[in-house]
Amino acid sequence: MGAWSAALRDLARTSSLPRCPLRSYCTFMPPSSSNLQAIEAYLIALQDRICASVESFEPVLRFREDAWQRPEGGGGRTRVLSGGKVFEQAGIGFSRVSGNALPPSASQHRPELAGCAWSALGVSLVFHPLNPYLPTTHMNVRYFEAQTKDGQTIWWFGGGFDLTPFYPFDEDIRHWHGVAREVCEPFGAEVYPRYKKWCDEYFYLKHRKETRGVGGLFFDDHVVGGFDNSFAFLRAVGDGFLRAYLPIVEKRHATPCGEREREFQLYRRGRYVEFNLVYDRGTLFGLQSGGRTESILMSMPPRLRFEYGFTPEEGSAEARLMDYLQPREW
Amino acid sequence: MGAWSAALRDLARTSSLPRCPLRSYCTFMPPSSSNLQAIEAYLIALQDRICASVESFEPVLRFREDAWQRPEGGGGRTRVLSGGKVFEQAGIGFSRVSGNALPPSASQHRPELAGCAWSALGVSLVFHPLNPYLPTTHMNVRYFEAQTKDGQTIWWFGGGFDLTPFYPFDEDIRHWHGVAREVCEPFGAEVYPRYKKWCDEYFYLKHRKETRGVGGLFFDDHVVGGFDNSFAFLRAVGDGFLRAYLPIVEKRHATPCGEREREFQLYRRGRYVEFNLVYDRGTLFGLQSGGRTESILMSMPPRLRFEYGFTPEEGSAEARLMDYLQPREW
Repeated sequence: MGAWSAALRDLARTSSLPRCPLRSYCTFMPPSSSNLQAIEAYLIALQDRICASVESFEPVLRFREDAWQRPEGGGGRTRVLSGGKVFEQAGIGFSRVSGNALPPSASQHRPELAGCAWSALGVSLVFHPLNPYLPTTHMNVRYFEAQTKDGQTIWWFGGGFDLTPFYPFDEDIRHWHGVAREVCEPFGAEVYPRYKKWCDEYFYLKHRKETRGVGGLFFDDHVVGGFDNSFAFLRAVGDGFLRAYLPIVEKRHATPCGEREREFQLYRRGRYVEFNLVYDRGTLFGLQSGGRTESILMSMPPRLRFEYGFTPEEGSAEARLMDYLQPREW
Repeated sequence: MGAWSAALRDLARTSSLPRCPLRSYCTFMPPSSSNLQAIEAYLIALQDRICASVESFEPVLRFREDAWQRPEGGGGRTRVLSGGKVFEQAGIGFSRVSGNALPPSASQHRPELAGCAWSALGVSLVFHPLNPYLPTTHMNVRYFEAQTKDGQTIWWFGGGFDLTPFYPFDEDIRHWHGVAREVCEPFGAEVYPRYKKWCDEYFYLKHRKETRGVGGLFFDDHVVGGFDNSFAFLRAVGDGFLRAYLPIVEKRHATPCGEREREFQLYRRGRYVEFNLVYDRGTLFGLQSGGRTESILMSMPPRLRFEYGFTPEEGSAEARLMDYLQPREW
């Protein structure tokens, strides 16, 4: 563990900020506008860093950026790289949006926030690699705050990263979860197991009785040890993503493969679509609330297929995937 | 108009059954079990007829049938033909399911039916033709009944058919809506405009501001002129489907086309997936209520693609489609 992780652990330990006993968010140490600026600066730089890493695998192609504005306030920059040698499609968006009155549909579980002024910032990505031996991946880091009518600031962080292999390699998954564990460690021993479990539960296709992939981290309402410590956790997750994913890209992107593997990848990508359109709260809320459709749906696979009644041959590499689509410790 | 249509019109005119003044369903003339049998016999024969019509276009391939049972009661027969010369995928399912207690999620708009014994029968199909000049189509005819606690039978019919072209031909769409109008005519002048409008409203992708296609008919809670007349309407819709669709298949299935048209078809099939997984009540309810996933998702296109920010070239045949994706009179 590096000096940076140690410093974060110290911060987590020494934080003297009390935690709300009854709710998972709190109003102690309300963030100032300089906090919003700090989060934005981090997210923008994170998006740039991740794009540079993806482009380092691509001999020719570069991300195309669409900067957009939202009439109600804020905007974003959506970046997509399509048709790469390694990444068939890589989409990564930054957005900072705000409004004067949170719609009730966005505050179902927090009715006291309906009608409050709010801001939300985040970076979200989905990468669909070309080689079927390379897993699809998703990462998201986000921040939300609302001003209550009595002048309090309610805020929390959310996000995580998860991996969706087609042909799983145990060593890759152990590495992936190893980084996830390392990211969480400075913030308390309970963090990794809790957010790993949440990830398994969130990315679950009930109608298939399958997880979306082999998981990772998922968290929401994260307010632990005050703003600085919570933001430090968000940065740990954001920074951890590349450490978790890049070694897998390096190792697997040139694995020889043929039509059989491609067809299986296209088929399994159907599950990604099923999850994102049927269950994913961010996708559904975005579409229902008039978000920018193209930015929301850049998570969709570039090509895919559905096949009625498909069952891989018993004992095949394709049948083996099913063993990985139930929660498991790594 | 043939003798059959005239007879139906007479039936609609002479029906002396009163209509419920306050609700769209009624309990007059409760259907007996012989009615359920009559509906089942019609639906089974309809599925057979439609399969035979599809197979008549296929030199070699035949439907594969999966008969299934539902632990809670009932079952169905799901038929799929995949990889045909004309039909890249044709899926058509018959089901007859029942239960002792309607779940609250299935009776949101009819809270008085929660917990009642119920039966549902239907035939549902989605055809994805191979040639991009041939439209995708969907048809559904269904019947629902529930026994209230005070011994009444609440029942209604639902269904419709709609067309989703990629390269629209006005004469085909006029023919399609012409059959829809003819189907409705014997049942009253208001039926076609009402169910045509309902179709435009139902098959609408709010996040795209597009209809799914050029529409047709959609209806639910259909109880007009008693059971016999309502069932006659259902049969008119079911029988009308082949008259509406087959001439288009005959005319367009061999239209010369190339990669450009295929790519556009694959792209537009993404919209079908978006509609079915985000909006379609039957699909969502089926998946959430533990329905047979493979039967529900046989509506999914066999192959498709998504492309971030795709906009067809101005003035192109592909751009022209957009003019057809807003409600219009035919």
